[in-house]
Amino acid sequence: MDMDLVIKNGEIVTASDTYEADIGIGSGKIVAIGRGLEGNETIDAKGMHVMPGGVDAHVHLQLPFCGTVSADDFENGTRAAACGGVTTVIDFAIQSAGKTLMETIEARRKEADGKVCVDYGLHAGITNWKNPGVWDEMEEAVRYGIPSFNEIFMVYRKEGWIADDYDLWQALVVSRKLGVLICVHAENVFVTESLTEKYLSEGKTSAYYHALSRPNFTEGEAIQRAITLAEAAQGNLFIVHMSTKEGVKAVAEGRKRGISVSAETCPHYLVLTDDLFKGENGHYYATCPPLRKQEDCAGLWAGLVDGSVQTIGTDTCTFTTEQKNMWEGDFTKIPYGLPGVENLLPVLHTAGVNGGKFSINKFVRLVSTNPAKLFGLYPQKGTIAVGSDADICIFDPNRKVVMDYRELQTNCDWSPYQGMKLNGYPAITISRGEVVARDGKFVGKEGWGRFVKRKAGGHIESNC
Amino acid sequence: MDMDLVIKNGEIVTASDTYEADIGIGSGKIVAIGRGLEGNETIDAKGMHVMPGGVDAHVHLQLPFCGTVSADDFENGTRAAACGGVTTVIDFAIQSAGKTLMETIEARRKEADGKVCVDYGLHAGITNWKNPGVWDEMEEAVRYGIPSFNEIFMVYRKEGWIADDYDLWQALVVSRKLGVLICVHAENVFVTESLTEKYLSEGKTSAYYHALSRPNFTEGEAIQRAITLAEAAQGNLFIVHMSTKEGVKAVAEGRKRGISVSAETCPHYLVLTDDLFKGENGHYYATCPPLRKQEDCAGLWAGLVDGSVQTIGTDTCTFTTEQKNMWEGDFTKIPYGLPGVENLLPVLHTAGVNGGKFSINKFVRLVSTNPAKLFGLYPQKGTIAVGSDADICIFDPNRKVVMDYRELQTNCDWSPYQGMKLNGYPAITISRGEVVARDGKFVGKEGWGRFVKRKAGGHIESNC
Amino acid sequence: MDMDLVIKNGEIVTASDTYEADIGIGSGKIVAIGRGLEGNETIDAKGMHVMPGGVDAHVHLQLPFCGTVSADDFENGTRAAACGGVTTVIDFAIQSAGKTLMETIEARRKEADGKVCVDYGLHAGITNWKNPGVWDEMEEAVRYGIPSFNEIFMVYRKEGWIADDYDLWQALVVSRKLGVLICVHAENVFVTESLTEKYLSEGKTSAYYHALSRPNFTEGEAIQRAITLAEAAQGNLFIVHMSTKEGVKAVAEGRKRGISVSAETCPHYLVLTDDLFKGENGHYYATCPPLRKQEDCAGLWAGLVDGSVQTIGTDTCTFTTEQKNMWEGDFTKIPYGLPGVENLLPVLHTAGVNGGKFSINKFVRLVSTNPAKLFGLYPQKGTIAVGSDADICIFDPNRKVVMDYRELQTNCDWSPYQGMKLNGYPAITISRGEVVARDGKFVGKEGWGRFVKRKAGGHIESNC
Amino acid sequence: MDMDLVIKNGEIVTASDTYEADIGIGSGKIVAIGRGLEGNETIDAKGMHVMPGGVDAHVHLQLPFCGTVSADDFENGTRAAACGGVTTVIDFAIQSAGKTLMETIEARRKEADGKVCVDYGLHAGITNWKNPGVWDEMEEAVRYGIPSFNEIFMVYRKEGWIADDYDLWQALVVSRKLGVLICVHAENVFVTESLTEKYLSEGKTSAYYHALSRPNFTEGEAIQRAITLAEAAQGNLFIVHMSTKEGVKAVAEGRKRGISVSAETCPHYLVLTDDLFKGENGHYYATCPPLRKQEDCAGLWAGLVDGSVQTIGTDTCTFTTEQKNMWEGDFTKIPYGLPGVENLLPVLHTAGVNGGKFSINKFVRLVSTNPAKLFGLYPQKGTIAVGSDADICIFDPNRKVVMDYRELQTNCDWSPYQGMKLNGYPAITISRGEVVARDGKFVGKEGWGRFVKRKAGGHIESNC
Repeated sequence: MDMDLVIKNGEIVTASDTYEADIGIGSGKIVAIGRGLEGNETIDAKGMHVMPGGVDAHVHLQLPFCGTVSADDFENGTRAAACGGVTTVIDFAIQSAGKTLMETIEARRKEADGKVCVDYGLHAGITNWKNPGVWDEMEEAVRYGIPSFNEIFMVYRKEGWIADDYDLWQALVVSRKLGVLICVHAENVFVTESLTEKYLSEGKTSAYYHALSRPNFTEGEAIQRAITLAEAAQGNLFIVHMSTKEGVKAVAEGRKRGISVSAETCPHYLVLTDDLFKGENGHYYATCPPLRKQEDCAGLWAGLVDGSVQTIGTDTCTFTTEQKNMWEGDFTKIPYGLPGVENLLPVLHTAGVNGGKFSINKFVRLVSTNPAKLFGLYPQKGTIAVGSDADICIFDPNRKVVMDYRELQTNCDWSPYQGMKLNGYPAITISRGEVVARDGKFVGKEGWGRFVKRKAGGHIESNC
Repeated sequence: MDMDLVIKNGEIVTASDTYEADIGIGSGKIVAIGRGLEGNETIDAKGMHVMPGGVDAHVHLQLPFCGTVSADDFENGTRAAACGGVTTVIDFAIQSAGKTLMETIEARRKEADGKVCVDYGLHAGITNWKNPGVWDEMEEAVRYGIPSFNEIFMVYRKEGWIADDYDLWQALVVSRKLGVLICVHAENVFVTESLTEKYLSEGKTSAYYHALSRPNFTEGEAIQRAITLAEAAQGNLFIVHMSTKEGVKAVAEGRKRGISVSAETCPHYLVLTDDLFKGENGHYYATCPPLRKQEDCAGLWAGLVDGSVQTIGTDTCTFTTEQKNMWEGDFTKIPYGLPGVENLLPVLHTAGVNGGKFSINKFVRLVSTNPAKLFGLYPQKGTIAVGSDADICIFDPNRKVVMDYRELQTNCDWSPYQGMKLNGYPAITISRGEVVARDGKFVGKEGWGRFVKRKAGGHIESNC
Repeated sequence: MDMDLVIKNGEIVTASDTYEADIGIGSGKIVAIGRGLEGNETIDAKGMHVMPGGVDAHVHLQLPFCGTVSADDFENGTRAAACGGVTTVIDFAIQSAGKTLMETIEARRKEADGKVCVDYGLHAGITNWKNPGVWDEMEEAVRYGIPSFNEIFMVYRKEGWIADDYDLWQALVVSRKLGVLICVHAENVFVTESLTEKYLSEGKTSAYYHALSRPNFTEGEAIQRAITLAEAAQGNLFIVHMSTKEGVKAVAEGRKRGISVSAETCPHYLVLTDDLFKGENGHYYATCPPLRKQEDCAGLWAGLVDGSVQTIGTDTCTFTTEQKNMWEGDFTKIPYGLPGVENLLPVLHTAGVNGGKFSINKFVRLVSTNPAKLFGLYPQKGTIAVGSDADICIFDPNRKVVMDYRELQTNCDWSPYQGMKLNGYPAITISRGEVVARDGKFVGKEGWGRFVKRKAGGHIESNC
Repeated sequence: MDMDLVIKNGEIVTASDTYEADIGIGSGKIVAIGRGLEGNETIDAKGMHVMPGGVDAHVHLQLPFCGTVSADDFENGTRAAACGGVTTVIDFAIQSAGKTLMETIEARRKEADGKVCVDYGLHAGITNWKNPGVWDEMEEAVRYGIPSFNEIFMVYRKEGWIADDYDLWQALVVSRKLGVLICVHAENVFVTESLTEKYLSEGKTSAYYHALSRPNFTEGEAIQRAITLAEAAQGNLFIVHMSTKEGVKAVAEGRKRGISVSAETCPHYLVLTDDLFKGENGHYYATCPPLRKQEDCAGLWAGLVDGSVQTIGTDTCTFTTEQKNMWEGDFTKIPYGLPGVENLLPVLHTAGVNGGKFSINKFVRLVSTNPAKLFGLYPQKGTIAVGSDADICIFDPNRKVVMDYRELQTNCDWSPYQGMKLNGYPAITISRGEVVARDGKFVGKEGWGRFVKRKAGGHIESNC
């Protein structure tokens, strides 16, 4: 056993176990778990949690959107991921008019390869659902390593991205045959658009109208509808960035009826509320769906605890204050999105584990094992086991940090969590056996990351 | 007490009571209930149920549709109503492009007045929801005697009739303020249209594809969505012609959550199934939504029994075999609709009361008292009480009749219920004190009926 | 039509209708309903509700209990009933050791006949469930006019009254065959007895410990259990004096599952709370089950509104302050019980109808029609219809009265509702055509009341 | 790293992970997991699942019962366990009259120590709940290593073992403070006893009457009641040997309400039905609760799949045909109980994993990790992790075995599963590093097993 690196004395944490042992790494893989292991290099993890690196299945790096491009590009965004303990991200290849799906995917890969600092995957974002060849294109994507089709926008009609109910239903029918996930951004387009127009026409353009134009029921209704379609299609549905208590209820009931529906929420929906829109820089916080009320946070936490909500992604889509300020006082012109991949682990550990909501094992499930299993990365990613990639976060549960965007790697000159008192922070991040971040500083190299082929058939058993 | 007519010795049946007594009628009103009453004329109702005349809140007489006009016009259709024990019908004034709502209503009244054989009301069918003056028009209609807005089509996009989710939500918001009902034809337009196109493009045009192109979930989803919008709006929702068990479930759950939602089903959804589409003249049976499965019938009956479904209307929209045959083998060209107002009472009595599903009092509630209360006709219509209009059906519970369209008054040369063995049939129908039908034959006069102003605020208490 | 008495110009209120008309009475029956009726005597009811007299299916007159006898005897108690607008009461013939059921019934009739001022019925209180002839005795009682078996005590073990779960299940099995109701006082005997002993042994004997020794779950559990047994037996269950929100939930769920379970609550559980036990004369308020919390009141009101709770009885069991004071500071020695039959209508009208919780028709259903239907008195009692007994309450909805026990007919020198501001009060009470009370004063005669034979098979359809 | 034994090339299976690696064992513990490990001894596990040994939390070895003693004693029963891949059993120390709890525990330990072939724990079976010192005794037992109190019989009144509802409630109150589990045998004693007496008195004594005298609702009711008490007490409830679909429903609803209730079912309730009682040797199958219907099996499987049921124990209580035949045709004299610890893994693997109901990881959760976590054995037992006891089952998923009692180690001359075709069987069982069974034959030594002190506070997170 030739071990390049040994992590000694840490407390290994997986989705189900917690125990003290060393981890031996060779050729980028975990090769041994034991006591008294020796290797060429050694990291002492005494007092640390040694957990699988985070898997953030929802990032939008260098995304052209709202007349600008999201500020964290593949290089920078994955550098931030590494510093936050995240070792795999899944971004999106969103079809633009006239491009085939594979062309789209290849184009996106060109942007990422050679830049990314940790491993990455892609969801295929189909926008031309009326194309008769779309089902063949899906199959081709699956063979290529992309078994999730994301985001089926129930909104963004003007952008030409919308899938109507028939398209969604058909996609769900196909999902069953291919064993893939149909990922849905669920909002009621008619209500949100008309409300938006109404507020604009009334001159109500301040940031808080972003929230008012997308009331809870627009998400709750759309999720309910998507679930009904999934039931009819016996397909596999995944709700992205769920933000409302109504959504949690719909998903929980659907799962109880035996429908294959899973859901993701984001850290910002768990710890921030829409009061922020009322502040001086309220428009900074605009993302879609908007931040909600305290009772929605509570509903989402309860959904995580009882297993109705299975994963946490960040929906990272970074815009700087300069970009945000392009809004000129009109909420419909704000580039929607928040930075986040770098904050996922510390924010969730602080609010979830230290907040007494769940155990450290559940934390690992939510930020690593479950997304890895659902999105076909497991067991290569998402656990600490012999044979898995040595994608590891050595997490210091006792480190106290006050969130400050100036200390972060993201290209963002503000933070939605600015000033938040964090309990626990990644100490060291290891990607395929290489230390890529230490104490929040990037020490890896650009282009280290690779595209990961994912497998179809991913799922999480029952409510674990 | 000057009594023009006395109905003697019958068993009076109301929504809650059953007892033997005579009814005295003067000036078109019920003026006395007692024993040994005497009047200028006398009807012996020994052995009969003496019940309030039926209130069919859902008929489409002489409706221009599918390139033809429904075959029962105001004269003939209300003659059929009279013969079937129905003393009030509510038809629709559906706005056509360029007309104001009041113009529409006045135009429709011109078609009906002087023709109708029993009293009638109108629902206002708004189609131009984007008109900024629509809310004022609604208020005007309420003052005029029309407190129900019907049908808000979630379908019929091509006809320009559709209301999108925003419109429906706004209508529901207004409904709360005005105390009116928003009546919805709930089907998912995207799925039904796309499926229809798909089948057409595949050359699948036989009658059964009418059913296949509108699967249960398209109704279930749309009802669920309408209820979610009603909840958000705190408005008053009424689901017309509900046909599926999924619909019943959604309505029952909505009512349990305290949402103001009521629902109607139709006789054909209770006793006919979609196998009929497979027969030689399967296209005759096409109506919208289509006939469903036995399990849907069962679900609808259960909903009637437990109070989740409150009224029964017929959705009468008669087309002759000649009209039906205009389809030329293409299910999308069938004039959708069935005759029915004449069959409401006997079919429901046979299948419901004789079928052991509920009592004669519940029967009266479903076909008379509940629609009268919900639609603002009560207590003028819908009960046997002193002061109410003498709209009475003397119903013979023991009469055995085999349904035969040749014996009916409708202008229809076929019947969906042909050959059905009926237990119980109207013996005499009285409209405002005048006998208008006897033993299924019309003995009244054209134009006897009047437009009835209805009141806002109609409702049924809890699950009665 | 020979009419002894005509009630003119009132607003007749039944379970489902409200309309203005006169009522003609002959030979103790309602013989006519009309306008302009004339009779030997006339009562002007202008501005009044003319409703069926109350049916209080739960009174305990001159009941030997706790070493004393309840202070309202048959004469006085029914005089109070009359003054409160109640025209029928149902009392209990509770078997004592060594007596057959029919002996028990005959003995109780001897106490009542010649004394009662309004009509009365009896529930048969079987206590010797282990007697192999018990089922035959039940059948005999049904033939005699007693189709309800009441109270099957799940408590009162020491008194020898208890029925264990097997007995209750068997009684429920028999109830299906006989079409009768098994009425249950549902409390968990083991917990209530042990808690009582515990408090006594700790010297905790003040009145509030009466409530503490019977926590909500002791009722909720017992009701749940009784419902499970009713489901297993497919029998007919009636829960008497339900006091908790937990009970309402269990009954509502049972009814939804199709189980034949109905429930009664009492005015004191709707408007009084257990804080009263903490006052100086807290022991006055001891009844069983005890008064509960505000949230229980709310739950019970909601149950009435949505139809989960069908009737209201008073559980009248009057004890004077002298009797109450026999407790000597020990809550286990308080004669449990409250006066009430005289207050039923005004208290419920005030809190229910004036309180905006339900309509006047629902009020009539709760205090008259529903108990009459359930307990086999209908249509003789419980409605305003030709042929029914002229048991009528002319209720003045506008009369303001401040409750004062000194003005009441009950033999009680205090009132749980003392000082309550009442909106609406009975003006005149008529029993079988005779005016027996006017403005709260008795004007009838002792012994006017008769034993009423009741019919098996009583029920209320769905949730009306 | 000094490794006594290495298990090579197997597929390690834990509650959440599956991966190929070697396991190194030293001093009875797992010391390394890796590839290419070397040790003094080697086992090649190519093609095998290497999983944590089974934890059977419900066995009754050498239990005096029904006038005899269960046939598998501590030596033999744990030998059978070893051969079946079970490395820890939890038996019961049931208090007899006049003994303190600690005396009882010590006495039971004397019977087991020096005999047991694998490790064991004890549940404390309190029978004298009226003893005022009982709470102190419980605390003492927890300190001793016994944090579960089992079985609180809701039945066995005659044996003096019963706890009434008050005792159970109080025990649950205490359970919260001590962080322990109250384990309940839930059946309604009144109904089962009376039904039994009834059948006996009618001469209905055949084996099928065992089932008829304990209908489903007797379990469903008792479970519901126990859950209500747990809710009131905010205590920790564990339902042993749950056998009915009604039980599953009650537990699932309780968990959804946030009540701390868990449940165990047994292999025989999953794969056998009450038809067996009708056969020639029907009395062999008598256990308590009895075998049920196919629909109960289905309900229990569904409960396992969705997480409503968390563990599987065997309730092993072996009686030979000779002992069973002591019944003399009277079902009340059958020694109730079935052999089982030896069959747990193969039966559940066959019906559960091969039967397509759940994954191999879920299998491990159900038979090992979950009982270990709930009963305070984890992480010493119940997983494959460095530092855990080397209690390992090398399970051959492809081995086909036809169940034959003659090949088993149990002292039982029949098997309820005789002739069952098993897919998968334990190949090798290792207890604290020692191979104790190979291919179904015991190769360990008597007395190898040790008493295991368990910790309070055991629990399973959410529905995992």
